[in-house]
Amino acid sequence: MNIQGVHYRSIWPEDKAVSIIDQTWLPHRFVVAKWHTLEDVVHGIRSMQVRGAPLIGAAAAYGIVLALADTAAATTLEQASLALLAARPTAVNLRWAVERMQQRLNGVAPATRLEVAWQEAAAICAEEVARNLAIGEHGLALFQQLYKEKRRRLNILTHCNAGWLATVDWGTALAPVYHAFDAGIPLHVWVDETRPRNQGAALTAWELGQHGVPHTVIADNAGGHLMQHGKVDAVIVGADRVTVTGDVCNKIGTYLKALAAWDNSVPFYAAVPSSTIDWRIRDGLGEISIEERDPAEVAHIKGCDAAGQIVEVDILPPGSPAANPAFDVTPARLVTGILTERGLCRPQELAALFAREGQL
Amino acid sequence: MNIQGVHYRSIWPEDKAVSIIDQTWLPHRFVVAKWHTLEDVVHGIRSMQVRGAPLIGAAAAYGIVLALADTAAATTLEQASLALLAARPTAVNLRWAVERMQQRLNGVAPATRLEVAWQEAAAICAEEVARNLAIGEHGLALFQQLYKEKRRRLNILTHCNAGWLATVDWGTALAPVYHAFDAGIPLHVWVDETRPRNQGAALTAWELGQHGVPHTVIADNAGGHLMQHGKVDAVIVGADRVTVTGDVCNKIGTYLKALAAWDNSVPFYAAVPSSTIDWRIRDGLGEISIEERDPAEVAHIKGCDAAGQIVEVDILPPGSPAANPAFDVTPARLVTGILTERGLCRPQELAALFAREGQL
Repeated sequence: MNIQGVHYRSIWPEDKAVSIIDQTWLPHRFVVAKWHTLEDVVHGIRSMQVRGAPLIGAAAAYGIVLALADTAAATTLEQASLALLAARPTAVNLRWAVERMQQRLNGVAPATRLEVAWQEAAAICAEEVARNLAIGEHGLALFQQLYKEKRRRLNILTHCNAGWLATVDWGTALAPVYHAFDAGIPLHVWVDETRPRNQGAALTAWELGQHGVPHTVIADNAGGHLMQHGKVDAVIVGADRVTVTGDVCNKIGTYLKALAAWDNSVPFYAAVPSSTIDWRIRDGLGEISIEERDPAEVAHIKGCDAAGQIVEVDILPPGSPAANPAFDVTPARLVTGILTERGLCRPQELAALFAREGQL
Repeated sequence: MNIQGVHYRSIWPEDKAVSIIDQTWLPHRFVVAKWHTLEDVVHGIRSMQVRGAPLIGAAAAYGIVLALADTAAATTLEQASLALLAARPTAVNLRWAVERMQQRLNGVAPATRLEVAWQEAAAICAEEVARNLAIGEHGLALFQQLYKEKRRRLNILTHCNAGWLATVDWGTALAPVYHAFDAGIPLHVWVDETRPRNQGAALTAWELGQHGVPHTVIADNAGGHLMQHGKVDAVIVGADRVTVTGDVCNKIGTYLKALAAWDNSVPFYAAVPSSTIDWRIRDGLGEISIEERDPAEVAHIKGCDAAGQIVEVDILPPGSPAANPAFDVTPARLVTGILTERGLCRPQELAALFAREGQL
């Protein structure tokens, strides 16, 4: 996607190193950081210079590459994998990417190993982009249909960041938005700020703004009111996990928007690559355990002060505790459709869609 | 209510002046300010040293008193009234209190005028407290019943601040909480932080903490998830306006909590004095126009930095606009009950409850 008119991905190889957009400075500074070593990558994942499951996977693949570039010792691959897996132990894509790199590199002759590693990391990124591109194309068809019905600018609401900053390019929930925008469909995005970490205000608003997509940031409280007054034509979100029955586990607060969409007959979509679908789980509410994150994320807010410095402020009274459940589950009954790289389907059709394609 | 074990109201006469808790410093500093002149009161209302409709009314009454104390000129009453009405033109209680003071004082002999004014302002405060006390007593009965059913600590969720800081004492939504707590019913309050102005995190958490009521602050996004997992036994909120049909207009985001309560069979109550009921309006969604406030309230967050200074930070990317609808309307169909100084009733019974008492 574009930043001030220049095309960027969220991660790319450059001069035997790996460049990334350092997201800890967003939305206040645009900083490109360069990783030269495995340690740089581990630190970058741990400190959330990069975040978003698909992007973490891509970063880990390049972590293996940089480790191999540093030393050709026989144990390098194994040690690098362990270091990366420890960086964010719960990230599914991280494990997947590390294991794929291991499988590809085991048995490759030392002389060509590094070159193969560079190629495999690039392939992981390319496949990731292709999946998001496909989601965007299917989403474009959906938005074209919606535009044909409404015959006026579309208002799309999204929660959290499922844009290209969370992936390598395009994003999941935002891929259809960028495709529709680039195709000339007039649209405007309501961006939930997404407390407590404000990924909407900090990342989604920033990436939409850089690409030139009209948008407005709102408090998470505002979406229901906007839907009551006909100001939202569709809700589209990403997901951290989708059950085989179509329950959608996503950033905390998604369920509230799905309820409001349902109450006001606004369609509600989740856009996910098939790697996000958990084929083993049928009951999202009963079977997915929700991560309780540090209450400090509720208490502290980072922003830019009057002097332009990035500072963190505490908004709670001394002694008042906070709780921070990070995700919630939207039951399939509230979900209009799931948008995948294979196309759009109703939540209860998810298994059939992929079974037809021989994936189950 | 209590602050560190000492009983306080939010406003009180003291040595021919008027003392208030300056809410612009909360929750980080407890500052009592003293108003000596009408100008102090106008500034205090305008700068939100005091907020909350009932408290603004009480403050305006004392503004008249301080104006009369300053000068006995014949035009004082009229000029003071105009100055106060201009301070926050949309506040209904402000106009009501100013008009009541005018009616009481017109025709009173100059020699006793000031004394009568002090008495009338005190009477306005006393009546306000009596109404909230009655709401608290009816709410206590409700919570006693709930406790009999659950036989364990009650979890109550509230949105925004409808506590004693918004009134003179007790509050509306929080009056039942304080009554139940003081009566020994074990309870815990989930406090929605209430973006964009954070009245939950800054005011509700602070006043509950000072009175010793167990509570936990959560992002506005979290309530639905908590209800899905049985962690909320009742939702109780205040209101800015309630229609004769029981539609509840309250701080933005209330509707989302009402939807989640409805979806999870959690009772949802609005606690309001009868002065908040608009007997002329039947359709809350269609007839109540919602105030759009300054987008800067979404963009800027005030808190305490690492050095203990109170600072404001900007959380938005440069150039990203924000929207700030301040209230939403919860349709009566989602409201379990309305709690007033006359008792608890279903929303559709509101008119009958007050008609019986000869108020309609």
